[in-house]
Amino acid sequence: MIIVMEHKASPQLVDAVTTRLKQLGFDTHLSVGVERTIIGAIGEKRPGYMEMLGAMPGVERIVPILQPFKLAGREWHPEPTQVQVGDITIGGDEIIVMAGPCAVEGEVQLLEIAHELKRAGAHILRGGAFKPRTSPYSFQGLEEEGLRILAEARRQTGLPVVTEVTNPKDIQLVAEYADMLQIGARNMQNFTLLREVGHVNKPVLLKRGLAATVEEWLMAAEYIISGGNSNVVLCERGIRTYETGTRNTLDLSAVPAVKHYSHLPIIVDPSHGTGRWRYVTPMAKAAVAAGADGLMIEVHCRPEEALSDGAQSLTPTNFQQLLSKIKDVAQAVGRKSGSPAVV
Amino acid sequence: MIIVMEHKASPQLVDAVTTRLKQLGFDTHLSVGVERTIIGAIGEKRPGYMEMLGAMPGVERIVPILQPFKLAGREWHPEPTQVQVGDITIGGDEIIVMAGPCAVEGEVQLLEIAHELKRAGAHILRGGAFKPRTSPYSFQGLEEEGLRILAEARRQTGLPVVTEVTNPKDIQLVAEYADMLQIGARNMQNFTLLREVGHVNKPVLLKRGLAATVEEWLMAAEYIISGGNSNVVLCERGIRTYETGTRNTLDLSAVPAVKHYSHLPIIVDPSHGTGRWRYVTPMAKAAVAAGADGLMIEVHCRPEEALSDGAQSLTPTNFQQLLSKIKDVAQAVGRKSGSPAVV
Amino acid sequence: MIIVMEHKASPQLVDAVTTRLKQLGFDTHLSVGVERTIIGAIGEKRPGYMEMLGAMPGVERIVPILQPFKLAGREWHPEPTQVQVGDITIGGDEIIVMAGPCAVEGEVQLLEIAHELKRAGAHILRGGAFKPRTSPYSFQGLEEEGLRILAEARRQTGLPVVTEVTNPKDIQLVAEYADMLQIGARNMQNFTLLREVGHVNKPVLLKRGLAATVEEWLMAAEYIISGGNSNVVLCERGIRTYETGTRNTLDLSAVPAVKHYSHLPIIVDPSHGTGRWRYVTPMAKAAVAAGADGLMIEVHCRPEEALSDGAQSLTPTNFQQLLSKIKDVAQAVGRKSGSPAVV
Amino acid sequence: MIIVMEHKASPQLVDAVTTRLKQLGFDTHLSVGVERTIIGAIGEKRPGYMEMLGAMPGVERIVPILQPFKLAGREWHPEPTQVQVGDITIGGDEIIVMAGPCAVEGEVQLLEIAHELKRAGAHILRGGAFKPRTSPYSFQGLEEEGLRILAEARRQTGLPVVTEVTNPKDIQLVAEYADMLQIGARNMQNFTLLREVGHVNKPVLLKRGLAATVEEWLMAAEYIISGGNSNVVLCERGIRTYETGTRNTLDLSAVPAVKHYSHLPIIVDPSHGTGRWRYVTPMAKAAVAAGADGLMIEVHCRPEEALSDGAQSLTPTNFQQLLSKIKDVAQAVGRKSGSPAVV
Repeated sequence: MIIVMEHKASPQLVDAVTTRLKQLGFDTHLSVGVERTIIGAIGEKRPGYMEMLGAMPGVERIVPILQPFKLAGREWHPEPTQVQVGDITIGGDEIIVMAGPCAVEGEVQLLEIAHELKRAGAHILRGGAFKPRTSPYSFQGLEEEGLRILAEARRQTGLPVVTEVTNPKDIQLVAEYADMLQIGARNMQNFTLLREVGHVNKPVLLKRGLAATVEEWLMAAEYIISGGNSNVVLCERGIRTYETGTRNTLDLSAVPAVKHYSHLPIIVDPSHGTGRWRYVTPMAKAAVAAGADGLMIEVHCRPEEALSDGAQSLTPTNFQQLLSKIKDVAQAVGRKSGSPAVV
Repeated sequence: MIIVMEHKASPQLVDAVTTRLKQLGFDTHLSVGVERTIIGAIGEKRPGYMEMLGAMPGVERIVPILQPFKLAGREWHPEPTQVQVGDITIGGDEIIVMAGPCAVEGEVQLLEIAHELKRAGAHILRGGAFKPRTSPYSFQGLEEEGLRILAEARRQTGLPVVTEVTNPKDIQLVAEYADMLQIGARNMQNFTLLREVGHVNKPVLLKRGLAATVEEWLMAAEYIISGGNSNVVLCERGIRTYETGTRNTLDLSAVPAVKHYSHLPIIVDPSHGTGRWRYVTPMAKAAVAAGADGLMIEVHCRPEEALSDGAQSLTPTNFQQLLSKIKDVAQAVGRKSGSPAVV
Repeated sequence: MIIVMEHKASPQLVDAVTTRLKQLGFDTHLSVGVERTIIGAIGEKRPGYMEMLGAMPGVERIVPILQPFKLAGREWHPEPTQVQVGDITIGGDEIIVMAGPCAVEGEVQLLEIAHELKRAGAHILRGGAFKPRTSPYSFQGLEEEGLRILAEARRQTGLPVVTEVTNPKDIQLVAEYADMLQIGARNMQNFTLLREVGHVNKPVLLKRGLAATVEEWLMAAEYIISGGNSNVVLCERGIRTYETGTRNTLDLSAVPAVKHYSHLPIIVDPSHGTGRWRYVTPMAKAAVAAGADGLMIEVHCRPEEALSDGAQSLTPTNFQQLLSKIKDVAQAVGRKSGSPAVV
Repeated sequence: MIIVMEHKASPQLVDAVTTRLKQLGFDTHLSVGVERTIIGAIGEKRPGYMEMLGAMPGVERIVPILQPFKLAGREWHPEPTQVQVGDITIGGDEIIVMAGPCAVEGEVQLLEIAHELKRAGAHILRGGAFKPRTSPYSFQGLEEEGLRILAEARRQTGLPVVTEVTNPKDIQLVAEYADMLQIGARNMQNFTLLREVGHVNKPVLLKRGLAATVEEWLMAAEYIISGGNSNVVLCERGIRTYETGTRNTLDLSAVPAVKHYSHLPIIVDPSHGTGRWRYVTPMAKAAVAAGADGLMIEVHCRPEEALSDGAQSLTPTNFQQLLSKIKDVAQAVGRKSGSPAVV
């Protein structure tokens, strides 16, 4: 790290910092300019040191040099990771499409949509059993009954299932039913939950937090991987900005950024990313063109009756059209896409 | 709510929406303008209906009219709430100051600072035993040992204790030791945790999420209150913006906004809000002038050795000066402030 | 517009608002709910009325119903606009690529890159003669000499020229040399400049402001069109967010949003949008997949010697590869793209 | 500046960068760590060099060390600047209050409010003659007639006048009538305008841009000062964030930040900062407590008839109460405040 001293910081203050750095085990390196003295500190990165040193008199700021993530980073793990969910591989040649309703509302509803999705060519079935809702008065999900329904849909269609877990104590339960555990955007820095899914033998879909930087997102992945579970797939789902014309601002630059810094696969959720079904297909195409490994799409047989997120859900017909367009874009960027409408 | 139909939406589409509204139990009210038809829907607000209707063909957007919070709102509860923490009252005339280190690092450290704070005139002792940290390699807190130390500090100084809880399963444990439970910014929408602290007989300090609107924050309070626990104190601690000169952007307008919409007390944390100890005292003064009911301040005997957040911590001497300045501002705005330095 | 009255606003206050609305020429429409009274106001939209009414006692808020833009909007002009720049058509089938250095640094530099771009298959040459720079000490552009060099490059290559104008008094000068006038992001709400380019017979490239909503951007276009110049092309170039890993956050959802609300063509600038040359090609592909009508790309023969924006500039070789990849994506989404490398 | 090389950047790439640095006149300083090589470059800061070097192969990023502003900065000009407007001093002991309507709407309106403000104790009269409005169909100001009316109000009340200039060609005209020129938020990076007001012998009120960092704001001041006009007063007026409950987010931390980095006076505009008259007085008090040198407040005799910004305007009665409260806070923080209501 680099310690930038204040303009006119006295030699005594500079000495105090270098002395402290040496106590902490760093080699130091002094560079005295006309306007500023800066101190280079070489040594093992230990979190917390930056904050301590920032409190010393005469220190203007600390500039970190090393990336804070190790296991999630590409530097020490250059080859891309592939994550297996049932017999589906995420991070390979094929664009993987996860689809389904926001929430599992009942057995009839879910089985109907699951068969539609299977016919259309989706790879993985999504649906929420535990729903984190802004209002305590909104539908909170069917919980274990929802998990059971998801498992039944898998039995009937063969589609692996991804569903969200929100409470550390439910992890074992969700893992019994689901093929992949989802950590939602609002829990991306629920470190307790991250640590616990790190001990589970199931792949994890880690959504980006509403206001998380790519670096913080990779640090959240680091929590999971450092717990022992390296099967992490990232999911860009839009960030919060001042723009109110869309529900969130889908940050597709995060796709090449994640590919640059990390070996983990990344998929994109244009349904939450835009909040408006009209924009879902163009942004799904854009995501694939940007290099995403897959998509997560909300589909509901009757969006106008959905208990959650109707306005951003596609109908099965629109979803089928989306898949057909995705196929063309996937080919254009050298990827494969499961043939849609394989009845 | 108001349903705005698209330009040139056909009468059939308008009919379909009004029919659906009547099915859902709303009275409707049609207003046909030159460019737009709008439908007013009068009836009990049920969450989820807005999203459903937003998915109907011809609907441009839905405008909610009622506030989503009820129990946290001032409309049905005009008088301000006062929250009792030990023998301290938050939301009364007096400006309440919570102070202490970011993390409990050890017994000697905490007892030393606790006595300093008591002498200086702080009202409540803060200190983290469970620390949510961005990096899995950072100091994560002393956990139950930290709680024990906090309780010992209370025994010696008489200061009530507030500390963060991050995992639903730890709530009982933390409640045994602490006088007030803190929900941190990263857990403001950890609805599982909110629901559980709603069942506990301890006051809750609810920090604003990094990218939460005031409305979402009040909805988080609504989760707690609707669970049965109405002793909620809000804490503004800065929001995430594009500005990098401060750690967060302290949104002091949230103080009059919360006072306008809610009956709950609100305090301000200028330490996290700015991230720089130089700005803590001016922003503490500003918070009191804006109408805050209290402050949360990070204080550490040796900030340059703090295991967390050193750069934003005051020394005991600086803290004592802060209290003395706060006293003057409190008087100017018709509030009281405990006499600093009451040895 | 809809006027939402405060909870428990008295009938007198409601009357005062309806009386005022009638004075202003609106038909009104009262809807009395249990918690709120709302007043619908039907009539011609006149700007400023919303703000006035928002100041009346008992008014909680005003909800606009109509879109503020008319001439830039699709409602009264459903067919897409095509803009002609020399013999190039923007908004037709073909993806149009504008390319060139950030700044015109000298004749030799510009002619060299112009010939490279022509060979590679670019359609329009870009280059700044008047440079709005954050620092007064940065290179501010060659001004008229820069314009002359651009015109010479056009003479030699046949590429039409787009360049920025920053001062109303320079508009005539720039219009003499250039084929298209660019309004930069920092001037998107320089209304004086917008009004003046509205009186000029040259197409305008209107970049989105750093923190502008899509609605405000379309209102900026409305300024130009209402002045008489309807040849406006929009350019998404990234918005300012909390994310620091990229220079800006490229908001590609703006592409379908603009297509939905407006008839104007839209292109995307992934160079400023990301600020990092590594991300330019993936985001250019994504832009085309999202439905953009064209691209603006920074290219410099020796980025490491560029006087401005080197870190986001492609070399001619990288640019040629970009064009070849764009071609495939354009075909996948049913668009044409000029054959790259047409020597 | 510091050049951070990529992980595993070859010695050849490192050599190329150090060679280029030496060509550019820098002394270099190599520090080879286990994971990264970093190069310190010592020498005169020349803008543009950072961007060039960022384009060199093997360079990960460039970290600037020096502040980009010189004349606006406190390092070489430690004593605070005082700016004289008529016989009013901004930046001294007294809290200076600028007040008036958003727009000059007519002579009768302005004279009425001007006399009210004078009686209440305001120091400077504000009012817009050239109005930058989001919509081309909104009231755009009375232009020269508005300036004439402002001058007449000054003649009658003795209050100096501040008004906005938006077009470089109007600067002379505005300077003939006004005592202080205002650069509005939307023009904070209209560098042409900044450069031109740098050549004028009138104090300048420079509002912060909607999405400007404090550093960029000080760079805008640097443009003016480097042109020869050092009488610059900064005005914080809220920044754009995701929060929609207020019109902007008033960033009061900018007050201590500006005081730390710069010698220029800073005032605060809580009217635009919040957009809601209810929040104006609490935020005005907070601004003074945070250390602001003054306030800018919108006041209108009949806000419900204002042609612009009614919802954020105070009535003269409310304004008088604001001044009386400000007086108490000013005393509490060791400042003076003109006795309100000095008839």
